[in-house]
Amino acid sequence: MSGGVMHAEMLEQPAVLERLVGRFDDQVERLRTVVPDGLAGVAFLARGSSDHAAVYGRYLAELTSGRPAGLAAPSLHTLYRADVDYSGYLVVALSQSGATPEIVSVCARLRDAGARTVAITNAADSPLALAADVAVDLAAGAERAVPATKTVTAQLVALAMVGAALGPAPFTARDLAELPPAVAGVLDDPEPASAVAERFADTERLYVVARGLLYGAALEAALKIKETTGVFAEAISAADLRHGPIRAAGPDAPVLILDGGGPGSADLQDLASVLRERRVPVALCGPGEDADVTLPRATPEALAVVPATVRAQQLALAMADVRGLDADRPAGLTKVTRTH
Amino acid sequence: MSGGVMHAEMLEQPAVLERLVGRFDDQVERLRTVVPDGLAGVAFLARGSSDHAAVYGRYLAELTSGRPAGLAAPSLHTLYRADVDYSGYLVVALSQSGATPEIVSVCARLRDAGARTVAITNAADSPLALAADVAVDLAAGAERAVPATKTVTAQLVALAMVGAALGPAPFTARDLAELPPAVAGVLDDPEPASAVAERFADTERLYVVARGLLYGAALEAALKIKETTGVFAEAISAADLRHGPIRAAGPDAPVLILDGGGPGSADLQDLASVLRERRVPVALCGPGEDADVTLPRATPEALAVVPATVRAQQLALAMADVRGLDADRPAGLTKVTRTH
Repeated sequence: MSGGVMHAEMLEQPAVLERLVGRFDDQVERLRTVVPDGLAGVAFLARGSSDHAAVYGRYLAELTSGRPAGLAAPSLHTLYRADVDYSGYLVVALSQSGATPEIVSVCARLRDAGARTVAITNAADSPLALAADVAVDLAAGAERAVPATKTVTAQLVALAMVGAALGPAPFTARDLAELPPAVAGVLDDPEPASAVAERFADTERLYVVARGLLYGAALEAALKIKETTGVFAEAISAADLRHGPIRAAGPDAPVLILDGGGPGSADLQDLASVLRERRVPVALCGPGEDADVTLPRATPEALAVVPATVRAQQLALAMADVRGLDADRPAGLTKVTRTH
Repeated sequence: MSGGVMHAEMLEQPAVLERLVGRFDDQVERLRTVVPDGLAGVAFLARGSSDHAAVYGRYLAELTSGRPAGLAAPSLHTLYRADVDYSGYLVVALSQSGATPEIVSVCARLRDAGARTVAITNAADSPLALAADVAVDLAAGAERAVPATKTVTAQLVALAMVGAALGPAPFTARDLAELPPAVAGVLDDPEPASAVAERFADTERLYVVARGLLYGAALEAALKIKETTGVFAEAISAADLRHGPIRAAGPDAPVLILDGGGPGSADLQDLASVLRERRVPVALCGPGEDADVTLPRATPEALAVVPATVRAQQLALAMADVRGLDADRPAGLTKVTRTH
């Protein structure tokens, strides 16, 4: 089967997530010990897939900590050698391998600049884990497929831990416990994603739209689809799509909408109507009955990024299948890149 | 002429920029009065084209202030009603009209939450200007074309003012004085952009790559090209392109590289070589002699975002022309959008 390695790793996700959920409270306790007193802000440091997880982390951290959060700009530190005081900041660095040189060196630099640092890696003894004050080990097992899957959803749960360490989280212990079986349910139901892949069989360009806590899943969906198919997929917030690029959507450039059932839901439903009126093909992924691809209804929006990301993986795999491509062999992609 | 209104406004840019440069030092003095003591961080608040200018502002502000900077997530405040303490923060809100409801309401909300606030608008009496502690009026004159041009480059200069108010700026008074004539020189030289537009006449997908202080220009270039032509253009940092989506570049998906001649230049030149080896058509915009489209050599990288943005405008206009489209009449685009 094409994409067999990717698919096998996707199927490991309920077990990986269950292990993480089992360690959730302990990890939150450890993370609390490094949150600076008088927190000035939270900055996330990442590249690629990890950067998309970080977008989720950024929204959640600002919500729970009550202090501004944002994404660090690694090139300010690698290229420009910026002299920046990070005291009062919690910096959360993500790298699946823990070996992305740029992330390791910037994490060390920001720690030297006063930040308290957290590393989220899938390699407990990696340079990044060693460079940070506290490390969360995803323990997802070796990832062999080039398109990252289980490490991404594991990162999302690790970022939920960071959010919970920073303040009251918008999800309960029961919500967490129900997440692995909910993901298993999604994985047992691949047909809806395959049906969308069939509808989009001739698509060479695609928008992926979400808002707020689901926006990271939109970024990840676009990247996965690009990786597995070469389709020119682009994530965009609903607000920004309306603000201009809606011109580029059309019969040949459909829109995938990810709706987590949160406060942005009405806006996304309205956008779907506007697009359909403009004869733009729309695929809706959400908890509603009218969704083309459903999300588990019991998952709160603050955790819906996990099943939404799994739906995106299914779609990326199915789109590759429909095109006769092998999702395990994307050209031009390497696992660890050296940037300077 | 198609795109006649857009083109006329592009030609106003040297005069608009000259007026702003003439007010530069006075505005920097005013801005300094609102920078909080013990600055905790800087957050930029914007949508659409303004968001791209804000990316430039974010890099520059972290460089000059020596404190972390980032982009605010408006939906955290509009959708989620997040309760966030912004004390110690300078918030810089951008809206050309000064009337984007989401930006106005979030600016007021963050000011109430403790931020000192700056409004950058092209409308001195606009709701946003009135909602902020200090307002910088772009005084660019009414903008009639739907694709924003002169207000964008004016915003970039206003953001250079913010950077200079936060700390030592990486440009001199003489660099500023030379910026308007440099832009006039670019506008007098439209042929190189037209030649690239001819080469890309059949392109329906395009990557725009830059790093650091030029990344905002890449975002703006992608948006302008999408607006005027419907081409699926996407901005991406050189690092992130290598990290995965390089698979999607190819003979049908060329890459426009914006090189400001700064510390990222060697990396961008290397990327251009890698892409050409992969038979990906590349158009290089930079200060070097081998550039397809040149940037003024005397402009320091910290201000090169302005002429690079003008080059992007020329390319967007020329790509519309080559395709027989009217850049003044992009479908599906409205000037002020209401998001909620």
